[in-house]
Amino acid sequence: MIQHFKFGHMLPTDSVVLDLPVQSGEIPFLTRDGDGWRYAMDERDIVYGLGEMVRSINKRGWHYLTNNSDQPHHTEDKQSLYGAHNFFIVNGTGGRPTFGVFVDFAGCVAYDIGYTEHSVLTFRTAEPDYDLYLLTDDSLAGICRELRRLVGRSYIPPKWAFGLAQSRWGYKCEEDVRRVADEYRRNHLPLDMICMDIDYMQDFADFTVNRERFPDLPALAADLKERGIHLVPIIDAGIRADGQNDVCREGLANDYFCRKEDGTPFVAAVWPGDAYFPDFLRPEVRDWFGRKYQALTDQGIDGFWNDMNEPALFYTPEHLQDVAREAGALAAKGNLDMYDFFRLQELFGSLSNNPDDYRSFYHLIDGKPVRHDRVHNLYGYQMTRAAGEAFAAIRPGIRTLLYSRSSCIGSHRYGGIWLGDNDASWAQLLENVRQMPSVQMCGYLYSGADLGGFGGDTTPDLALRWLQFGLFTPLMRNHSALGTRDQEYYRFRDLLPAMRRMLELRMALLPYLYSEFMKAALRDGLYFRPLGFDFPEDEWARHTDDQLLLGEGLMVAPVCTQNAIGRSVYLPEPMKMLRIRSLTDYDEEELPAGHHYVACGLEEVLIFLRPGHLVPLVRPAESVAALDESSFTFWGYLPEGQDTGSYELYTDDGNTTDYDRPEHWRILRA
Amino acid sequence: MIQHFKFGHMLPTDSVVLDLPVQSGEIPFLTRDGDGWRYAMDERDIVYGLGEMVRSINKRGWHYLTNNSDQPHHTEDKQSLYGAHNFFIVNGTGGRPTFGVFVDFAGCVAYDIGYTEHSVLTFRTAEPDYDLYLLTDDSLAGICRELRRLVGRSYIPPKWAFGLAQSRWGYKCEEDVRRVADEYRRNHLPLDMICMDIDYMQDFADFTVNRERFPDLPALAADLKERGIHLVPIIDAGIRADGQNDVCREGLANDYFCRKEDGTPFVAAVWPGDAYFPDFLRPEVRDWFGRKYQALTDQGIDGFWNDMNEPALFYTPEHLQDVAREAGALAAKGNLDMYDFFRLQELFGSLSNNPDDYRSFYHLIDGKPVRHDRVHNLYGYQMTRAAGEAFAAIRPGIRTLLYSRSSCIGSHRYGGIWLGDNDASWAQLLENVRQMPSVQMCGYLYSGADLGGFGGDTTPDLALRWLQFGLFTPLMRNHSALGTRDQEYYRFRDLLPAMRRMLELRMALLPYLYSEFMKAALRDGLYFRPLGFDFPEDEWARHTDDQLLLGEGLMVAPVCTQNAIGRSVYLPEPMKMLRIRSLTDYDEEELPAGHHYVACGLEEVLIFLRPGHLVPLVRPAESVAALDESSFTFWGYLPEGQDTGSYELYTDDGNTTDYDRPEHWRILRA
Repeated sequence: MIQHFKFGHMLPTDSVVLDLPVQSGEIPFLTRDGDGWRYAMDERDIVYGLGEMVRSINKRGWHYLTNNSDQPHHTEDKQSLYGAHNFFIVNGTGGRPTFGVFVDFAGCVAYDIGYTEHSVLTFRTAEPDYDLYLLTDDSLAGICRELRRLVGRSYIPPKWAFGLAQSRWGYKCEEDVRRVADEYRRNHLPLDMICMDIDYMQDFADFTVNRERFPDLPALAADLKERGIHLVPIIDAGIRADGQNDVCREGLANDYFCRKEDGTPFVAAVWPGDAYFPDFLRPEVRDWFGRKYQALTDQGIDGFWNDMNEPALFYTPEHLQDVAREAGALAAKGNLDMYDFFRLQELFGSLSNNPDDYRSFYHLIDGKPVRHDRVHNLYGYQMTRAAGEAFAAIRPGIRTLLYSRSSCIGSHRYGGIWLGDNDASWAQLLENVRQMPSVQMCGYLYSGADLGGFGGDTTPDLALRWLQFGLFTPLMRNHSALGTRDQEYYRFRDLLPAMRRMLELRMALLPYLYSEFMKAALRDGLYFRPLGFDFPEDEWARHTDDQLLLGEGLMVAPVCTQNAIGRSVYLPEPMKMLRIRSLTDYDEEELPAGHHYVACGLEEVLIFLRPGHLVPLVRPAESVAALDESSFTFWGYLPEGQDTGSYELYTDDGNTTDYDRPEHWRILRA
Repeated sequence: MIQHFKFGHMLPTDSVVLDLPVQSGEIPFLTRDGDGWRYAMDERDIVYGLGEMVRSINKRGWHYLTNNSDQPHHTEDKQSLYGAHNFFIVNGTGGRPTFGVFVDFAGCVAYDIGYTEHSVLTFRTAEPDYDLYLLTDDSLAGICRELRRLVGRSYIPPKWAFGLAQSRWGYKCEEDVRRVADEYRRNHLPLDMICMDIDYMQDFADFTVNRERFPDLPALAADLKERGIHLVPIIDAGIRADGQNDVCREGLANDYFCRKEDGTPFVAAVWPGDAYFPDFLRPEVRDWFGRKYQALTDQGIDGFWNDMNEPALFYTPEHLQDVAREAGALAAKGNLDMYDFFRLQELFGSLSNNPDDYRSFYHLIDGKPVRHDRVHNLYGYQMTRAAGEAFAAIRPGIRTLLYSRSSCIGSHRYGGIWLGDNDASWAQLLENVRQMPSVQMCGYLYSGADLGGFGGDTTPDLALRWLQFGLFTPLMRNHSALGTRDQEYYRFRDLLPAMRRMLELRMALLPYLYSEFMKAALRDGLYFRPLGFDFPEDEWARHTDDQLLLGEGLMVAPVCTQNAIGRSVYLPEPMKMLRIRSLTDYDEEELPAGHHYVACGLEEVLIFLRPGHLVPLVRPAESVAALDESSFTFWGYLPEGQDTGSYELYTDDGNTTDYDRPEHWRILRA
């Protein structure tokens, strides 16, 4: 059930697709707390949701702010990352209430979930104009299904997007890209995508290609596609403000860019230096910008990632000059006391993504200027929508890969997300595990983190352990930053065979992973779920935050601790554990429900089969396109006395958008 | 056994107190690797040691650099923290070698322990002049004992230093300090110390007291001492360069400060702005500086913490002007490309603790100038030595509390350490657990981290969970930074009773904790040990990195995960588990050896009693001085059929330095 409440007159978000009557009267469960809302938590209540935020699956014990941020340090102290996912579920046991809340609001929402007071949850919007939806159902998954009914079905990528993507900020030319493809193929490491970061562009201008370094992109794309590899270029939010490139000229001519109070285009520096920012909140701007992707689809490109769309602002020219002036004056003083010195440090530290800058430009909504900060969280969403809606027009009936850094509930209909600029740390591997179910609750099914870590230097064992989790995530991308250690999987000589065996496992499992993804997408379900979703009365299951249920038949329990030779695992029901070194070399053991400590060496991954379920497997191939799905083997854990089982498989061409045809479903029996 | 090898002619460190003949020939186990050394690790080898470094007890899988650093972000990617602890142990099983290595060297040592290649350990000194000691013994604790024999006995603080210290950067005046004392006593929360951070000084000048804000320090110190509370002021390494204060004038007059190449005193800014840096490597400077502490001991002060002694350098005046000039020129360019922008950001980011600045000043060693970077890691050590040696002269026969931020093996003879500027995160709670045995292996027995976290905002549950570990650490200090959330234990209304019960547990255990500390100090042992030290053949024990053995009878297993309701624990032998809510309210359960998952609610702490051991308890009091140790109760886990046990208790006056008198030892029987 969904109950719809309205406060003031919200600015449009287009997050909701369901037109529900507004209810009056009190909101169940919540009480007023100043201009926000309050809920008194029991010690055993769990708070799920909030999507892409730091900390655990249970969001208790911190304060959060949905304020989409270009934030490369995903440490526990952060209040905001890249996504505004204003949906949470309070889950009580023993007769305590369970309910979901979706706050439909374009600006920032502040949550305090046991931070100020251990047992008190509060939340408030930055303005008094918002819609609030209260969602209830018999199950936690049901509450998420209600949300999806409210905000729409999740984006579905092409099937090849479930293969491995190799990415790096630093592939500077065609030779770099070809070398990656060659090394993957030479080492027999499966690969389906190579992502192209900012260096493929001419001077970081969107929709351009540097012709010196990439003299023939169509030929490159075609060559790679023949080898089963798709090129996936980046598109940034900011448009190089050189007055030269087409996008810049057209945007200026048509007044498509965000403007300052005086009506002139807002300028801030990003990769190309000074840039303009398309006003994606306007339908005509989305339409215009979306069509630009055709410059690349015409060259054989069928996948994109949208980046820097919080939007990230390195600095505004005005702010830079202010800072330089103040810093110069401070430095001229010479002997600075600590307050002056801290100010000096803060000055340059606050240049990027400065709140004042976000308050200095405007969008047009229904022809009226609206200051950016009031609708900040819609920006990346509407950029993704621009692309997604355009693809439907440019490539009708065909799926285009799209994932974005910034997001807001609503954009889940148009693209996936990746979890932004994490770093090469064991902490971020664990964070990846914990974020997955949270973003999925908010509709972002096609998602994943930068495996191995984006910032900082990875280690051979971290790269392998992270792959052992990444092989289960819908988006499986290895990505790293300029200046960090190379981390393509062929770089780690001594662990390369283990890397290969893990990638082969992904390919063998792909029919299962894809089927479970499609079930989640087409039936508004969840591909990854916390254990508490399926075992809501089991306190141990509810408090397990580093294991996930994957589809109907599997539980995964990644090792996220360096040098560990095993881990503690909680089984809410009897399961069959597979300790897998390769598809042909694994241990299996039936384990009773309860806590277990299980061995798991560096080159091993754990899979747990749920009772009564089968998991189909195919022979691995080096790309998704090369997979032969005509025959299957099975892993399964069938109860005593049951010697056959079945699996509901989804197969389609993986490329067209007629997802819903009933002939895509088959029952496999074994 | 200790084998002594010599390479070139090392600069003196005074780390070693044992005069061992130099051996020639090959170093057992190690092979040459360029100008460093190499060891091929087996997958099961563990590398212990390196003291105060990030990551796990097992140091495998990262590269480290002993380069003492003012580093407030103790994330996994850091290569250096505050201490140079060039001691590690390679521990093999199944016939593989086990040996310790101590590198006696004043500069930086680089370690690569499975970072570049998963199975290869290498290390190298920055210069070819160093001594290397190879340590072997039948046991891991024995290797650490050999190290202590080589480098000397560990520092012993007064007994009251085992009570709680409440600290905060931000106690600005006498009223602030008195309020802390009042609130602790009013809430019946035990407290033995209040630390005074930089604000007590006049303009951040060492050995001064701001007379406006602290009009009568002797009276304040006396009043508090009557209530069982010691004041512990901070002393910084840099001397305010105002030409006015005594220390500055005397240092200049006697040429006691580090100098630049041209012979003029080196200046860099720290808290007071421009500062001079005493050349602590010279005995006469140590003697002079050490005597300065008397300005405060004469006012009733009997404990100190030495800070900023890596030394931290906010900036040098020359560097600041260079940066301002370059930044101004960049900003004037206006439209910066990404490379210029990154440079601009880097410019100010690199002002502090800049390697160039560390290469721009000199010490005198035997009258000859030696560039600072060559002896960098000795600086904090020799400042601590200055204080420690002075206390022996100023307060002969009496213990003075002293702990330092920067350290180098050798300084463990003169003072303890705290683990520097951590932050309020669950990650740092776990790091605290992991660092404790590592620093203890290197001689730093009196040690502890800032409980609740120094930087950032703590949460009520983190403060409580951290206290549940901190109550076992020798130094138990709650400390936080200016601008962060107040975190004195009386601040958390709803959890205050639980905080009190944990502090009472500390006080009740104090006779045990103090006795075990004194055993470790007087017998060159370890107060905290990894499980692998006592169970070297047990692979599960060896790979346990979040549980510690504490003295002879206890194992601790802190909960370091937010919202957890239990944890996995490994028992290498049968133990009795106590799940303690308070001294009078706890569950006990005998558990067999092996893996267990045990419940542990937010207000509970786990203690594991080892078989055959007793732990004495006294009635808690609000300060160490008020503890009545005339009668004991016991917790114990006696084997079937054994109904009495004994405990070797150490008691002395806790204040004088005649530690070794045999009458301090008693056998308690129960």
